[in-house]
Amino acid sequence: MDTKNIGLRDIEVADTKISDIDGERGKLIYRGYDILDLTKNSTFEETSYLLLNDDLPTRTELEEFKQRLIDARDMPRQMQSNMRNWRKNADPMVMLQAFVVALAGYYDDKGENDEQINYQSAINLISKMPTIVASWERVRTGKDIVDPDPRLSHAANFLNMLVGEKPDAETERIFDICLILHADHTFNASTFAAREVASTGAHMYSAVSAAIGALSGPLHGGANHEVMKMLLEIKSVDNAESWVKERLNRGEKIMGMGHAVYKTYDPRAQVLKELSKRLAKKTGQPWYDITEVVEETTIREMKKQKGIDIYPNVDLYSASLYYMLKIPPDLNTPIFAISRVAGWTSHVIEEKFARAAPKPVLYRPKATYVGKYCGPQGCEYKPIELRQ
Amino acid sequence: MDTKNIGLRDIEVADTKISDIDGERGKLIYRGYDILDLTKNSTFEETSYLLLNDDLPTRTELEEFKQRLIDARDMPRQMQSNMRNWRKNADPMVMLQAFVVALAGYYDDKGENDEQINYQSAINLISKMPTIVASWERVRTGKDIVDPDPRLSHAANFLNMLVGEKPDAETERIFDICLILHADHTFNASTFAAREVASTGAHMYSAVSAAIGALSGPLHGGANHEVMKMLLEIKSVDNAESWVKERLNRGEKIMGMGHAVYKTYDPRAQVLKELSKRLAKKTGQPWYDITEVVEETTIREMKKQKGIDIYPNVDLYSASLYYMLKIPPDLNTPIFAISRVAGWTSHVIEEKFARAAPKPVLYRPKATYVGKYCGPQGCEYKPIELRQ
Repeated sequence: MDTKNIGLRDIEVADTKISDIDGERGKLIYRGYDILDLTKNSTFEETSYLLLNDDLPTRTELEEFKQRLIDARDMPRQMQSNMRNWRKNADPMVMLQAFVVALAGYYDDKGENDEQINYQSAINLISKMPTIVASWERVRTGKDIVDPDPRLSHAANFLNMLVGEKPDAETERIFDICLILHADHTFNASTFAAREVASTGAHMYSAVSAAIGALSGPLHGGANHEVMKMLLEIKSVDNAESWVKERLNRGEKIMGMGHAVYKTYDPRAQVLKELSKRLAKKTGQPWYDITEVVEETTIREMKKQKGIDIYPNVDLYSASLYYMLKIPPDLNTPIFAISRVAGWTSHVIEEKFARAAPKPVLYRPKATYVGKYCGPQGCEYKPIELRQ
Repeated sequence: MDTKNIGLRDIEVADTKISDIDGERGKLIYRGYDILDLTKNSTFEETSYLLLNDDLPTRTELEEFKQRLIDARDMPRQMQSNMRNWRKNADPMVMLQAFVVALAGYYDDKGENDEQINYQSAINLISKMPTIVASWERVRTGKDIVDPDPRLSHAANFLNMLVGEKPDAETERIFDICLILHADHTFNASTFAAREVASTGAHMYSAVSAAIGALSGPLHGGANHEVMKMLLEIKSVDNAESWVKERLNRGEKIMGMGHAVYKTYDPRAQVLKELSKRLAKKTGQPWYDITEVVEETTIREMKKQKGIDIYPNVDLYSASLYYMLKIPPDLNTPIFAISRVAGWTSHVIEEKFARAAPKPVLYRPKATYVGKYCGPQGCEYKPIELRQ
């Protein structure tokens, strides 16, 4: 095969109006807006509207959109009882991938070619995925499920359902900003999986479930869980420098450092770093300080040993941040998912209804056959008695 | 974007040893062997071994593999009770996509980087997917679930679980051949979805669940269900010619006709046509004859109207065939899945453990941003009061 196609890194597969990364300058843009501006001024609800609709909402549009999100928060009761039947140690990403497609058994399952129905499915998923994740945390720890509270914002409602206690305004805002930051990132592996599945005409729930599968991989969304495992292993600020050096000397990678696209500081990492610092002050926990030493040591050592500039990615500071928000580390990736679903659903709608490119769009790449070849008629089928 | 990349039709994304299509000559090859030879001599069990292992098994290897398949047929009891909780009109593909990933809550969920564990997951999926599909058919029609019968072959066991009655030898063999024919087809959209998800390091169940999502799309695996809807609408041989002509005159497509890759008769369609004819003689049903008129009329009219040569694809004759096997039409795509899973799991193992290409292999294509642009700083975030 053509090795420059490996991982499709340099292959343009579609036009998009949803987001753009400027890797050289460290910019991430949603529908024309710099995410740094959005984290200062916007909310996750408004950002979801922006991603789905191509511009910021008027006040009336935003109020209506928020109400639709609130109305869609419930999970069917039957699904709650099925959830109680699951093994309590099942991976939360497995549960999420299964329950998201199962939603199609209840909602909108015949409207895969209708844009309005796809839009409602997007709202369902943005609203119900937090309920699914929080309910699973309650069920697996033997606690009662906390119902959604229509008086709370998207961010506050999730934390309330998860922890069973309304967050204060600062905590709510910090989590809201995390949701904004993770909401889209162009054609990453999970978004591409969603678009690929949608390109066959499959419905929204099916496509988003596939995206969750891709996100669960340790090379993609699983990384922030790995960062927290690292921090817990390092344990204290005093251990951090030697721990990192030892790993680097063995030629190992440091989780949360480096990114395929950004050639400078990932703008999301920059915001998350500040938020993690704020929470560390508030809670008195050591995880921010440890992470900072990990960052500084990795940057210094990589420069010294290999002459390479390396920067934190989105996973480095989100790990400590979520931990201080009392989120169990194995929920880091599901929480990534409850934010990224805004992007996935926007991409599915774009793939299905807004592609400028000519049809057919179903993704069917080529492969180079390098296996056994016995001439154009194929290899001789030997009867089993003659095989050895 | 570069329009020649559309749908990735001409982009080689990987080397593979699993299968090869010669579209000009109408050949499909699994691991070096012509599928026409396999349909004459092999079984689905042996073909699955071939796809997973790169060569035909010795007698001992085949016996051991068959035993592992038989041992893996059961579905967890908890999953049976969850299944009874589902809405009876849920789409069987939705149910299958959800239950396949849910299996990871029970089996092998921590071994995504271990080749032997992935191989066992492949066996689990090949064995349990028929049980899931058949159980769902029983549950949704209010019948008792039929447990797997270890004395029966893979094909006979499925039909027994589905219909509640052991098939005769001819029916068993016809269905077995169908399973062989659908088992792999290089980098189609569902197989690519499985490989894409696996490329992030996600586990086998997650990747196969995503593939089921892609297969559910009407542009991919959903087509054979559409063919049967067409045949039921045509109803009798006498209506077939005029029905087809009317559709073609309106510029509509005929389902089951034409393929993106084959430029001649799809070898699978050829075999399925013969099998459908055999079953029609046996059952006295009109569906084969109707299909034949659909084929002939479409070929003649397309040549006359547009000068185009068109041939049946794999869906045209499988529809009537499955119908005569007493399989409800909305199970056609799930049955496609219980065969294709042999290919999907082989491709996941190849993607994870046998890629000759250098790392990184995670698929992350590019997109061309064509959305709003307000200079490198992004568009100005207007406060909501100022928007209209």
